[in-house]
Formats: sequence, C-alpha cells, structure tokens
Amino acid sequence: MRKRKDEYLYEKIASDLRRSINDGIYCVNDRMPSIRALSTQYMVSIATAIQAYDVLDGEGFTESRPKSGIFVRKQIIANKELPEAITPHSRPTEVSVSQLSMSLVLECRAKHLAKLGAAVPGSDVLPLGALSRTMSGVSRRMWKSPAVYADLLGFSDLRRQIAKLMKDAGCRVHPNEIIVTNGALEALTLALRTVAKTGDAIAIESPTYFGVLQVIEKLGMKAIEVTTQPNTGIDPSALQKIILSRTVKACVLMPNVSNPLGSTMPDDNKASVVKMLAVAQIPLIEDDVFGTLSYSQPRPKAAKAYDTTNTVLYCSSFSKTLAPGYRIGWIVAGKYQEQVKYQKFLDNISTTIIPQITLAEFLSRDAYKRCTKNTVRIYQQRMNQLRHWVYQYFPANTRLTNPQGGMVLWVELPTEIDSLTLYRLALEKNIAISPGILFSPRQEYKNYVRLSCGNLSGEKALKAVKKVGMLAKRQVKKG
Amino acid sequence: MRKRKDEYLYEKIASDLRRSINDGIYCVNDRMPSIRALSTQYMVSIATAIQAYDVLDGEGFTESRPKSGIFVRKQIIANKELPEAITPHSRPTEVSVSQLSMSLVLECRAKHLAKLGAAVPGSDVLPLGALSRTMSGVSRRMWKSPAVYADLLGFSDLRRQIAKLMKDAGCRVHPNEIIVTNGALEALTLALRTVAKTGDAIAIESPTYFGVLQVIEKLGMKAIEVTTQPNTGIDPSALQKIILSRTVKACVLMPNVSNPLGSTMPDDNKASVVKMLAVAQIPLIEDDVFGTLSYSQPRPKAAKAYDTTNTVLYCSSFSKTLAPGYRIGWIVAGKYQEQVKYQKFLDNISTTIIPQITLAEFLSRDAYKRCTKNTVRIYQQRMNQLRHWVYQYFPANTRLTNPQGGMVLWVELPTEIDSLTLYRLALEKNIAISPGILFSPRQEYKNYVRLSCGNLSGEKALKAVKKVGMLAKRQVKKG
Repeated sequence: MRKRKDEYLYEKIASDLRRSINDGIYCVNDRMPSIRALSTQYMVSIATAIQAYDVLDGEGFTESRPKSGIFVRKQIIANKELPEAITPHSRPTEVSVSQLSMSLVLECRAKHLAKLGAAVPGSDVLPLGALSRTMSGVSRRMWKSPAVYADLLGFSDLRRQIAKLMKDAGCRVHPNEIIVTNGALEALTLALRTVAKTGDAIAIESPTYFGVLQVIEKLGMKAIEVTTQPNTGIDPSALQKIILSRTVKACVLMPNVSNPLGSTMPDDNKASVVKMLAVAQIPLIEDDVFGTLSYSQPRPKAAKAYDTTNTVLYCSSFSKTLAPGYRIGWIVAGKYQEQVKYQKFLDNISTTIIPQITLAEFLSRDAYKRCTKNTVRIYQQRMNQLRHWVYQYFPANTRLTNPQGGMVLWVELPTEIDSLTLYRLALEKNIAISPGILFSPRQEYKNYVRLSCGNLSGEKALKAVKKVGMLAKRQVKKG
Repeated sequence: MRKRKDEYLYEKIASDLRRSINDGIYCVNDRMPSIRALSTQYMVSIATAIQAYDVLDGEGFTESRPKSGIFVRKQIIANKELPEAITPHSRPTEVSVSQLSMSLVLECRAKHLAKLGAAVPGSDVLPLGALSRTMSGVSRRMWKSPAVYADLLGFSDLRRQIAKLMKDAGCRVHPNEIIVTNGALEALTLALRTVAKTGDAIAIESPTYFGVLQVIEKLGMKAIEVTTQPNTGIDPSALQKIILSRTVKACVLMPNVSNPLGSTMPDDNKASVVKMLAVAQIPLIEDDVFGTLSYSQPRPKAAKAYDTTNTVLYCSSFSKTLAPGYRIGWIVAGKYQEQVKYQKFLDNISTTIIPQITLAEFLSRDAYKRCTKNTVRIYQQRMNQLRHWVYQYFPANTRLTNPQGGMVLWVELPTEIDSLTLYRLALEKNIAISPGILFSPRQEYKNYVRLSCGNLSGEKALKAVKKVGMLAKRQVKKG
C-alpha cells in the first residue's frame, strides 16, 4: 500500500514538473528545484523525489549537471537520428505544387482540426492584445490616412523601425532601401520577377518551403534543387558545382532557420555563398522570415550582412512573429531597388496603410524584442517536447531534424510510409500534418512529414502526435 | 454711377449663386431661386436679377425651362465638342507603360501639388470618420483575428455585403463566388493570369486605364486596342471585327463609367458584347470600379448582369468610394472561380483581415448607399464646374468628354500641344495632370490629358485649370 502511494506520488510530481516546463515556467537551461526542495515541498522521501527526476531525465526534459543541479535540457535528441540528406537531380524542373498546398492551408483554417502541420504561430504566443489596442488608437488618430494610397515604398515610420530591426541581423540598411509588401510571399514574387523571367532556372534548397515553389510555378520559371544538410543548410560546394554546370538566373535560400529543416548555415558558409554568387553574377534572394526566431540569441546574421556587392535581395515579414493576418512583409532589394519598386507598383500600387502604421507604433515601443524573446523561449520548449513525443510515439527508425529555431520539425519516416496517405488518414482523425512531397518540385520526400509546434502544445499536441504515430506504425505493418 | 453699382450687383449675385452651385447647395436639376425672389433678396431690380442669371446661363451653370423656372444644368457643354475617337491599329502591341505612370502616382502623393490628374477620391468626400470609428472598434473586439490568415476567399461577412451590393448592378452572386483582393488591380491580375498566358493578345479599350496596361505588361501579354466612342465606350462591331481576324485570349473592358472617358455602354451594347465574346469563347474581364459612381442613379447594370455562360470575370473595389488606403477589392470569376482562387493563393495566401472586417461592418449599416449618393452628387457638381472652366480657360478647339459618372475628364487639346511637355510644365507650377500617352500601349493620345475633379475643387481647382490653360495656350502659340 505504501509503495503504491509512493509510485503515485513520484508520477504526480513528475507530471507537475513536466507541466511547469511545458508552460514555460522553467525554460531551457533553467535550474529545476533541487531534490531536497522537492522532497520538502511534496512531503515525500528523497528517493521519491529522485524517482520523479529519473522519469523526466528519461523523457529528455531534464538533465543533471554534476555539482550544479538539475536543469531543463536544451535538446532532447542527439544528432545521430538526423534525416538523411537527399541528393536531388540537378536538372531544372517545371514546378507544380498543385492544389495540394492550397488545400493544406485551407484545411488548416478549419477550427475542428488539430494543427500539427502548419508553420503558423499560435494565437497564445502573439502579442495580439497589445496590437489590437495599438490599431484601435491608430485608426482613430490617423483617420484620414486611408484617403490616399500609402507611400509606394511603405509607411516611412515602419521602414525606419524595420531598418533598426535589421541591425540585429547584421545589416545596415537605410529606410529608403526598404519596400513594404503584402507579406514575404509578395516580396519573393517581386524579387524573382525582377531578376529572372519565364523559363529561367532558379536554384533552391531541397527540401524547401512550398511558398518558394508556388512563386516559381506562378512565374513559369524552373527549379534546380541544391542538396542541404539537416543542420547547416545548403552545401556551398554543391551550389558551386551547379552554378558552374548550368545557367542559374537566381538563387533562393533561407540561410537562417530554414523551412522545413530548421537549419541555419554557419556564418562562413553564408559569406562564401554570397561571395560565390556575386562572382557568378547570380542574385541571391534571402528569405529570412524565421531568422528572428532563432533559438540562439542574439539572432544569427543574415546572408545580406555579407553582401558587399548589393546583390542580395532580402525578404522577411511579421507573419511569424506578430500577426499573420496583417499580411505585412518587406524586401531590401539592394541594387535592384528601383526595379522592385516598379514591380510593386505594377502589382497593387501600395500596401494597406493602417496595419503598417500600427506595426510602426508597436515596434517603436521596444515591445517587439521582449515579445520575440518570449516567443523564442516558448517555441524552444515546445519543440523539445514535440521532438520527444515524436521520438517516443512514431515508428522505430524515424529520424528528426534538430531545428535551430522556429516551430517546424522535419521528420523522416520509414520508407514504407507514404506521407500523403498518412496525411489523409490523419485528416480523418481531425489532425493536419504537412506531407513531404510539398517541399520539392519533383515531389520527392514521399516518406517525410513536416510537423509544427506553432499552434499546438501540451496535451492536445501529445494526443495528436500519439495518434499520427499510431497511424504511421499501422502503415509500417501493412507495408 | 447708378449703372456701375448695378453692374457690380449682378456680378455679385451671379458669384453668390455660382458658389452655391459649386458648394452643392444647389445640385443638378435643382430649381434655382426665382428672378422675383432674387430681386427681393438682394433688393435689386428685376432687370438686374435677370442679368445675373444671364451670366450663369452663359457660363453653363443654369438653364431656363419654360413655365418651370431656372434649373441647375445637367451638362454644361454640348456633345459637339467631344474628343475625336481614334481608330487604333488592331495589331497586338507589346506594352510598356514605362516608369511614367509610376512617377505620376508617386508625384500625386506630394502634399504641395494641386492634384488635377489622379483618379483618386478627395478625403472630403470619403466617409473617413465613420470608417475610422468602425475600425477602431473592430480592432478591439476582433483582437484575435490577425492570428490567422483570413479565409482565402476573404472575410465571409464582407463577401455577403458585396453580394448585396452587386444586386444593384443587376448581378445575382453567391458570397462564395466572390474572392476579396488587394484592390481591383490584384483582381485584374488574377483574372488575366487565369485566362491567358505570356505572349497572348488581350483586347482592350482605347484609351484605357493605365492600370490595365500595367497588368498586361507585367504578365508579358500583348494588347489589341479597340476603338471607343467618347460617350458609349467600345463599338461592338469594331470588337467583332477584331475577334474574327485575330486570336484574342481575353477582353478587358470598363463598360460603366470608363477611365479615362467616363463613357457608359448602352445596355444593349453590353448584352451584345457579352454574347459575342461568349460565342467566340473569349472571357470578358469587366472592370467596374466606377460603376457605383454613375451620375444616373440607380446605377447602370454591369456587363456581368448579361452573362448567361458564366464567362465574365467581374472586378471591382472600394478604392473609389470608401478608402483607397485599405486596398480592398474583389473579383467574381464565374466558371474560373477555382483557378482564380488558386492564383490568389499563389500570390499572397489571403488579403489583410482587419480592413475587411471594418468594411463588412460599415456596409452592414446601410451607410454606404447614403454615402455613395452624396459622393455622386458632389462629383457631378464638380465635374460640371471643371468642364466649364476647361472650356473657358483652355485653348480654342479643346474638346471634352461628357463623363457619365466618376471624377475624370478626358480632354483633347489642339494637335500642336504635346501633353507630356504640358505635364512637365504644369508640374513646375506644382500642378499634376495625367498626360494622354499613359492611356495607350502605343503611347498615342499625345495631345490629350486626363483631368480629375476627385481631389480638387472650388478656387483651388479654378486656379489650377487657369494655370494649365495658360501653359497650353502658350504652347499653341509656340507650335
């Protein structure tokens, strides 16, 4: 009887601590309560307190550091299980993301779904209350502003704030070098339409964000895939080989916290890729939407920081950090500034005004940095959790990336598994995941999925991961 | 002495009445004070009162209707002075609007300029106060909404309101047939990218809104110009001839209150053009941004109202009637709905959310109709004034359109005048006009300008028109 009660107790303690970690009360590298403190707090024996930490250690939540105490772990799973890098064909490919990515995004809006696939931030993480108060004031005070189209470059105060932000990425940019866009997707479109034309070949990462493929498809261009390493992104030598052997009109990369890998290129690689492309006179389009959500802070430098020839077109947005629904992004186009400005004019004259003024005001209050720091902590925590659960509940031989930031996890399943089937089965159970074929123009990565901890956390996430894991295991058996 | 005083008096009375008409105290078709009333009010002789009305009649402000009284005139200038219809070459033309239209729009934002060219509504006409209060409330109440991308089709309540509006244009549309866009320019882009591809030939009106040319240029398509009549828009038989002799992939028209002509096609012509294009299996893209600003109310039917085969893609926006800075428009794509939806997804996933909710709420209050009615009255008044002044101060042989709505006036100057030179000279005097070459892919209409009464009225407009007229007269002398 006594033993039974103690068993119950250490599980209860472990569960309490687990929740505290999940809720962000204890963050990565935070010291946990000592064994003695736990024993006092819960009025249990030292042995029971130790047992509780054994559970958390085993689950990967905590680690004991000799002579220091017990800490929240940084990364739960070691690198040996990283997904395999695929060496894609280096021939240019016509792109057709097909309607799949669209259904995916649409389905993800459905309220009844557990959103385990979409790279969108959770509403609990975003500073929506502060933003709404700001916008409410702005729309009253600046009531006359919607009478005219906004400045083609974007609202000037917002551009000033963006210039400040870009310092953190190692970029010195004048506000007049910035063009505000309808999200990063418009920025990518403007960039590509400026530097390349229908039929041209564009070098991209493999796997890459399907939005990049969308834009390439829309503009009738072709994609050449470049091999990536799960932790460090594209391999400069692989890119070198491709640009020597083929006519490449532009290169689109996510050097920091790529989507879907979560990889960040080492600074040396960034510098050498920027230089290599400049020598070959190939413009680099840098997508940095996840850069500010890097787990290592201060955030890593942008490739643009190494741009001495002004040939990097830097694209980013506030969709991952502040408000997806505002649809506000920007581009710094370097020597292509005038052309990009003209393309923006051809598109829609200017970006909607009130959300721009709102963001400018919000950013001026310095709340953004605090809020980003908090967001990063939460995502890191959730990612640890997600990786742990996937590791626990997915089939044996599942491999995971070790994201350097952001909210998405790239998962390689056993080869028997067709992730599109898995996606459909999960959807029947009201869970949305992102099948791997979305992330390649050749629809490779058939046994990969992208998972996200942006929108889902805690018990709900656990339940969804368990269910998808079970569906995957069933497929292995069938296969 | 007595005579002199009377002269002063009738001029004073005429000036008072003129101002009352300009200020909208007396509107088109309103009965003016009788001659007896005037004589009593100003304590002058009947003869002096008659003299005052003689001046206003001569200026085109008023007209005497036998046995009824004196009324504010509907149209100041008779049709004999309409600009000449140009028969453009019917070969497909590569389009390059060049940077000129961009500088034009950019310059028009400059605060020091008298904006006599841009087709943007004046901030005194728009319901900006009511909109700002609505948005302020919306951003507080709906604070969570920017956490997710809006519905790809657009905010559902806004689509419901738009469906209601479209009834006025004779169109029965289900809210799910509507896609909300970043202004009408995006709607046009989506429509054209859906029904045609690079290199395809698109039939357009000549002259046409330069935004249409922008989109055609951006998509690498070609333009075939169709002759228009200043009052009635394109000539169905001219269009017939072109589609019989050439491969036309789509046709873009502004059947109601075209820009820059202000022409409205007779309903029969709309019906026959829609039918003709349907038989030829050529989709019609209808740009209806000025339709609600027709001077004849209830507003004329859209061409879409005659669409029995669902092949008309209807585009419109709130930029001319509510808030240009919101950048909210829409498209009803008929049988192309699914493809347009996909193209919108490729572009920017969805339109910014808070302005959509704000418009939905504003429109639900029925304030829109009242406000449009008021706007139409003001523009009609200002247009009368503008035409009168141009007639008075521009060189002899200047011809004007007789706009059926909206705010723009198409002016044919003597052939010696190069309107681009005139544009530059006017700019030096801080007045912005729109040179005619913007409105044709071949840069025809060299001696035409588009003027606008949207932003400028009263003394400021008069001063600007006088100045431009003087510059034009000088050019005639030089020429």
